[in-house]
Amino acid sequence: MSDFKELKQVAYESNMRLPELNLVLFTFGNASAADRDRSVFAIKPSGVPYEELRADDMVIVDFDGKVVEGGMRPSSDTETHAVLYRQWDGIGGIAHTHSTYGTAWAQTQRDIPILGTTHADHLTEDIPCAPPMSDEMIEGDYERQTGHQIIDAFDSRQLSYEEVEMILVANHAPFTWGKTAEKAVYNSAVLEEVAKMAYITLQIHPDAPRLKEPLINKHWERKHGDSAYYGQEK
Amino acid sequence: MSDFKELKQVAYESNMRLPELNLVLFTFGNASAADRDRSVFAIKPSGVPYEELRADDMVIVDFDGKVVEGGMRPSSDTETHAVLYRQWDGIGGIAHTHSTYGTAWAQTQRDIPILGTTHADHLTEDIPCAPPMSDEMIEGDYERQTGHQIIDAFDSRQLSYEEVEMILVANHAPFTWGKTAEKAVYNSAVLEEVAKMAYITLQIHPDAPRLKEPLINKHWERKHGDSAYYGQEK
Amino acid sequence: MSDFKELKQVAYESNMRLPELNLVLFTFGNASAADRDRSVFAIKPSGVPYEELRADDMVIVDFDGKVVEGGMRPSSDTETHAVLYRQWDGIGGIAHTHSTYGTAWAQTQRDIPILGTTHADHLTEDIPCAPPMSDEMIEGDYERQTGHQIIDAFDSRQLSYEEVEMILVANHAPFTWGKTAEKAVYNSAVLEEVAKMAYITLQIHPDAPRLKEPLINKHWERKHGDSAYYGQEK
Amino acid sequence: MSDFKELKQVAYESNMRLPELNLVLFTFGNASAADRDRSVFAIKPSGVPYEELRADDMVIVDFDGKVVEGGMRPSSDTETHAVLYRQWDGIGGIAHTHSTYGTAWAQTQRDIPILGTTHADHLTEDIPCAPPMSDEMIEGDYERQTGHQIIDAFDSRQLSYEEVEMILVANHAPFTWGKTAEKAVYNSAVLEEVAKMAYITLQIHPDAPRLKEPLINKHWERKHGDSAYYGQEK
Repeated sequence: MSDFKELKQVAYESNMRLPELNLVLFTFGNASAADRDRSVFAIKPSGVPYEELRADDMVIVDFDGKVVEGGMRPSSDTETHAVLYRQWDGIGGIAHTHSTYGTAWAQTQRDIPILGTTHADHLTEDIPCAPPMSDEMIEGDYERQTGHQIIDAFDSRQLSYEEVEMILVANHAPFTWGKTAEKAVYNSAVLEEVAKMAYITLQIHPDAPRLKEPLINKHWERKHGDSAYYGQEK
Repeated sequence: MSDFKELKQVAYESNMRLPELNLVLFTFGNASAADRDRSVFAIKPSGVPYEELRADDMVIVDFDGKVVEGGMRPSSDTETHAVLYRQWDGIGGIAHTHSTYGTAWAQTQRDIPILGTTHADHLTEDIPCAPPMSDEMIEGDYERQTGHQIIDAFDSRQLSYEEVEMILVANHAPFTWGKTAEKAVYNSAVLEEVAKMAYITLQIHPDAPRLKEPLINKHWERKHGDSAYYGQEK
Repeated sequence: MSDFKELKQVAYESNMRLPELNLVLFTFGNASAADRDRSVFAIKPSGVPYEELRADDMVIVDFDGKVVEGGMRPSSDTETHAVLYRQWDGIGGIAHTHSTYGTAWAQTQRDIPILGTTHADHLTEDIPCAPPMSDEMIEGDYERQTGHQIIDAFDSRQLSYEEVEMILVANHAPFTWGKTAEKAVYNSAVLEEVAKMAYITLQIHPDAPRLKEPLINKHWERKHGDSAYYGQEK
Repeated sequence: MSDFKELKQVAYESNMRLPELNLVLFTFGNASAADRDRSVFAIKPSGVPYEELRADDMVIVDFDGKVVEGGMRPSSDTETHAVLYRQWDGIGGIAHTHSTYGTAWAQTQRDIPILGTTHADHLTEDIPCAPPMSDEMIEGDYERQTGHQIIDAFDSRQLSYEEVEMILVANHAPFTWGKTAEKAVYNSAVLEEVAKMAYITLQIHPDAPRLKEPLINKHWERKHGDSAYYGQEK
């Protein structure tokens, strides 16, 4: 029996949430869950339809992207997950979707501007769009470079991966993460909804103003600050 | 056993209608139901997913926003509800959502113009958008000030809360109300549909004309006037 | 027991199709079915939610709009139905919805241009939009005048109600009809889909050309002409 | 008993996927499955609603479009299928829908530009739109000519039907194909999603750039190239 039964179950459930939340079509997208103590993560096998997926199909991979356990080939995006886990040691889960509005924004190569409190409830910055990768990066170790492109975008903008748990990769699609795989998937759904709202807003009013700072701060603080009062105390 | 069993049940059912009507994602949004005789209302606890919600979780709060009964922290928007109940004594229920099209309109900081009879069946005015709050209001008692911002918008435009049962708060989202919590939720769904129709209308024809007065009056009167003939006599 | 049991059943089933096809919200919309031999039609009672509707609730009305049988008040749009049945003796059913895209087009006061074969499979003309009603018509017998406005639009454009089974009423919403109530409801769904396609088409390409005549004729003929070969022979 | 029981079953299941994937309304659309050894295909009967369809209703037709077995009239688009099967001997299934976004693009008479990796995962070219047919083609043997119009578009652009498994027919709608009927239907869903994403992308940013070649090649190669690493080895 697998040593990673529980981890696989978490990854499995997170993957199954993606179609439930209408974030994926067919086999597009994937989620993973990390076990920091053992420096591995469980990820969806590549190209398996969600309706056929079983918890035991999850592939266990280390943070260098090497398969540790599992009879199937892991998601083709596994290297991207590995890079992020290796670099950002506070994250416990990652999700990647081709959700409709988030992907459309990625195709515009533009950040999703912060236009309202729905956005500010989750992050205080525009949702960043990492620039298109260079030809060298694409032709090299592509999925690994995708991870580096994400990290470079955070570094060059001095963003914190703990405060901004999502990004668009230009011409590709969203990646999201969080302390848990569940939170990563949650963030994918938030990104899609915020992307849709921003789209509609700018269609109605192309010059709709960015949310002003005090309101950004207020909504963030009430949910995430030291004296947060959203949700139940834990 | 709770003294407020029935009130909690009403509030619970109204909250559960929000995801059924596709008006909320995750824990976004909340509904409350008031008991005018006892000057209290029942409201959703903060941050609890709808699928885990039970009637008994509803928190009983007085019109000053103080918790009267309940083991959980009430919605972070509780103060906004309290202000509205205190100010407008004809309302028995309030709903707040981040529904997609309504929220997008709020992000444009624009009223939703009255463009057709679907709108006029429910109100004779553009759906007002309260202006962005001042920095002082935001940094002060934010949720209470949100309530005041709503009331100020109604006062300055000389709108009647009994005829216009909905508003957008700029950069935030819709609030709706009514004689009952059920009506408040109904109004949230109407607002979302009207917001979507207005969006599409203006995309096709940016100069689509406002509905003319006689038609506004006719549709309002047939549903709400003294000789209304819509619906069944009661 | 009712003399109109069967007719009520047909009207009931047609009404229940409207929410199934996502064409109505709450109590918006209504369908009716006519019995030509007895010069009556069965129509939805006013303001009753679809989930509470029973076949026996249908109200039997004559072609002058007078109630013949039924304990409830008929739809507030009953007079519009009556005018159309009286005027156009080839129709056996009528449907009225506030479906999202159809209503948005009605709010633009524009015809829906014929842009493709999906449209041409059902009619060879733009979907007409009857102009806004005069103040006198609105303030007079409004629903009856709505019927006359529809008929006038057909007369002035020399359209055949047997070939064009749908119309938008400006600033209001679609009305559709057909030989049966089932066909009328079918046409409401077709109108909504065609309205959505035309909207998207014109957003991508505002000068998208009207479908050319030979293709309009070909698609119409293969479904409706003397040597039609769409569907099964009957 | 039918000699084609298995083939009919495949065609039936592929047809039933179309409404499941929200690609068709009412009787619009059809799918077929070919048996290359016997030079026939099974196709949906014309005008039969999906909910009434049974596997045994499928009509067996040869590659000249002649009915070989079946009590019902085959889809009115049968000749188009026949032409494609006859011309392109590597395909085993064809699907035709009037899916909303794909059809809207067809109505613009424009190719769907390749804007991101969701598109590039499936084909390396813009999704071609065959030009409007000449009046002679329309008035002649229309459905057969539709097939020729598709093939001519591929020939004149030097596209490979094995690499590009989809096309829009101007003012009409999408056709897709593949090695199997299942793949053809899959391609219809991909086309619809890519069409929607491209629409949203260009609404946000009308000058969104085409995906650059190295990224097109990378995504195609990882799924379809000699050293493909997407999916499980077979």
